[in-house]
Amino acid sequence: MAAQTVASTTDSTVDLGPAAALSCRECGHRVPLGPVFACEECFGPLEIAYDFSAYDTEELRKRIEAGPANIWRYAPLLPVPADVAEKPNINPGWTKLVKADNLARELGVTGGLYVKDDSGNPTHSFKDRVVAQALEAARAFGFTTLSCSSTGNLAGAVGAAAARAGFRSCVFIPHDLEQGKVVMAAVYGGELVGIEGNYDDVNRFCSELIGDPAGEGWGFVNVNLRPYYAEGSKTLAYEVCEQLGWQLPDQIVIPIASGSQLTKVDKGLQELIKLGLVEDKPYKIFGAQAEGCSPVSVAYKGGHDVVRPQKPNTIAKSLAIGNPADGPYVLDIARRTGGAVEDVTDEQVVDAIKLLARTEGIFAETAGGVTVGVTKKLIENGLLDPTRTTVVFNTGDGLKTLDAVAGTGLTATIRPNLESFREAGLV
Amino acid sequence: MAAQTVASTTDSTVDLGPAAALSCRECGHRVPLGPVFACEECFGPLEIAYDFSAYDTEELRKRIEAGPANIWRYAPLLPVPADVAEKPNINPGWTKLVKADNLARELGVTGGLYVKDDSGNPTHSFKDRVVAQALEAARAFGFTTLSCSSTGNLAGAVGAAAARAGFRSCVFIPHDLEQGKVVMAAVYGGELVGIEGNYDDVNRFCSELIGDPAGEGWGFVNVNLRPYYAEGSKTLAYEVCEQLGWQLPDQIVIPIASGSQLTKVDKGLQELIKLGLVEDKPYKIFGAQAEGCSPVSVAYKGGHDVVRPQKPNTIAKSLAIGNPADGPYVLDIARRTGGAVEDVTDEQVVDAIKLLARTEGIFAETAGGVTVGVTKKLIENGLLDPTRTTVVFNTGDGLKTLDAVAGTGLTATIRPNLESFREAGLV
Repeated sequence: MAAQTVASTTDSTVDLGPAAALSCRECGHRVPLGPVFACEECFGPLEIAYDFSAYDTEELRKRIEAGPANIWRYAPLLPVPADVAEKPNINPGWTKLVKADNLARELGVTGGLYVKDDSGNPTHSFKDRVVAQALEAARAFGFTTLSCSSTGNLAGAVGAAAARAGFRSCVFIPHDLEQGKVVMAAVYGGELVGIEGNYDDVNRFCSELIGDPAGEGWGFVNVNLRPYYAEGSKTLAYEVCEQLGWQLPDQIVIPIASGSQLTKVDKGLQELIKLGLVEDKPYKIFGAQAEGCSPVSVAYKGGHDVVRPQKPNTIAKSLAIGNPADGPYVLDIARRTGGAVEDVTDEQVVDAIKLLARTEGIFAETAGGVTVGVTKKLIENGLLDPTRTTVVFNTGDGLKTLDAVAGTGLTATIRPNLESFREAGLV
Repeated sequence: MAAQTVASTTDSTVDLGPAAALSCRECGHRVPLGPVFACEECFGPLEIAYDFSAYDTEELRKRIEAGPANIWRYAPLLPVPADVAEKPNINPGWTKLVKADNLARELGVTGGLYVKDDSGNPTHSFKDRVVAQALEAARAFGFTTLSCSSTGNLAGAVGAAAARAGFRSCVFIPHDLEQGKVVMAAVYGGELVGIEGNYDDVNRFCSELIGDPAGEGWGFVNVNLRPYYAEGSKTLAYEVCEQLGWQLPDQIVIPIASGSQLTKVDKGLQELIKLGLVEDKPYKIFGAQAEGCSPVSVAYKGGHDVVRPQKPNTIAKSLAIGNPADGPYVLDIARRTGGAVEDVTDEQVVDAIKLLARTEGIFAETAGGVTVGVTKKLIENGLLDPTRTTVVFNTGDGLKTLDAVAGTGLTATIRPNLESFREAGLV
């Protein structure tokens, strides 16, 4: 199936900028750029191989700095054509890197603490970054329908991106999803199909559809377009370094769902070093999970190379992937860089959401509660050095997971007069 | 009360940059900068008078363009100290001006249609702009508590800004507000006080508190800090013009709640003209209301100068001010510039939210549905010229008013197999 699709859709006219080929992460086998995701030799994951050989470091830096205030400033480092910024796209990225001095004081961080706040993206999650890449690949391959399986953030990101770009969208979700999530995905007017079954059933169906003539012309952002999609996470690494004045942070805390984001952030940092855009120095990458879905954390702590799947049970639903595809790579990176993988309980997630909101005015999704909570725990157990520059990712918006903090409420109820105000002790 | 407060808190050490004094919009009476909002002579509204005399146009333009990617790039034109960007603030603004080509096609606009999308602000509404200004005034006047009465967006904006800046916050809301809105306001950890009564009771209580010793040190962003707060809306005008390449748009469609935003956008455009930052040419300003709260639209259509209060009944709750303080000024501006004021039904609001989402991937709050719906209506009735450059404001985020589009849902439900998929006609 995969090989057939390549043959029918790739040729020399595919212009994805510096992207030269797809390369297997396991065996290194190369194939031309196309809508394929698994190596035909070893079934390993394919990723983008670039040709950056023509770049002069200082010219590249100037070109980036003169670029638009979104991910397309990094077009020379992404699988997109040079004129990508002219095409209709929701243009995510260049989100705030917030110097979190109040949070730093509470956590005892003295070396500089920053929150990379991706709730500022168009549909308020980091998914806009990856979908924007997938969309450009879909355009290059002549697809006309953008699709995905989703239980939340991804559905909205695909719906919005397809709407702007004039693509048809068709998103598959479990039929019994909460009404609020259905509305967020449906409002963009694409097709939203409920599947009678659970999320695994939805995924199985999508794989079936890709192999069938009915799926002709369909780009599934996180399946047959996955190698392109995944590269979007590199932009988080680029932005953090540029926003720090073209410097690597000492430590980064990243949430783990499939593990792809963490893996690609590491790839992005390595590229910046090789290109000379940042000075080479050691950095540590830390992975963050919720205890109720902590397969990578468990493997890390147990000293294993293999990630044993779990059945997720946590409020951090956007991270609830029990069998994370990039888990082993995350373990490699955490160990290679001297980082770690840690998890926190749902109660700690909620506490961390409130802590971040109270100290920095940032209302994070549960995934942001996971990273902030894990940062606190890593400091307490001595694995994260509070005297070094640390960046914590918030990948989504609290408005999407209001239920997590539903217990938060009024501090007082009073009658509309000063006497009642004084009685309540509010002066 | 007002005069007394001025005497006790303002002196020559108050540094609010180019802000020189407060000036009465009605009688021109000037008083020193202080936490007052009503003229002691005629009870007219006070607004900021600036001294821009030292600016050289091209130097100013360069200084703005080299500034941060938030409202503080316009610090030379705002009542804030020159080093404002160094102080802890949630740094709103510099939101996207989206070229809305798909929407333009649907509406028949050929002259260029843009959506100024303020859902990209930190708490996802334009309120972050005005609260950020009020916060700097509160700092200058030595206040330690940031407060407001609110039924929605403002509560979150105040809570977030106070948290970041290290202020205490105390927000007053009707005690029976929907739980979701309470959570959005409460999560920032400030005091959130429910008042047994309706929104009018809340406002009356706040006015009482300002006049009482118990309110000492309290800055109510939209009451005693209102002159500073209101200036935040000027930044929408600055950004639109700079993002259009330092050009005035021909037509702007702006929602009307109190009317302050529209009034200050006009003030901002006039400043840009006087400073030479844009070429002087005619522009038209259009006001947008929901039919269920359309006091200004009714006055405009009736040819009146006086706005007769209404009891609001609309899903566009963020615009539901039945007795808009700046209503008469809005009428003046619409008439002076050759614009108009129009209103749409709640059904048209919902249709417009869906239209904007479907065409541009922007999920707007009900207020955005009002402006898009009114734009459509103004084109249909010939008041808005589709051959001219038009900017439509979206001032908030659809995630905050999910109920408005709650009817949106699945387009199909299928079993997880291709046969069921084909039966549903989705190929």
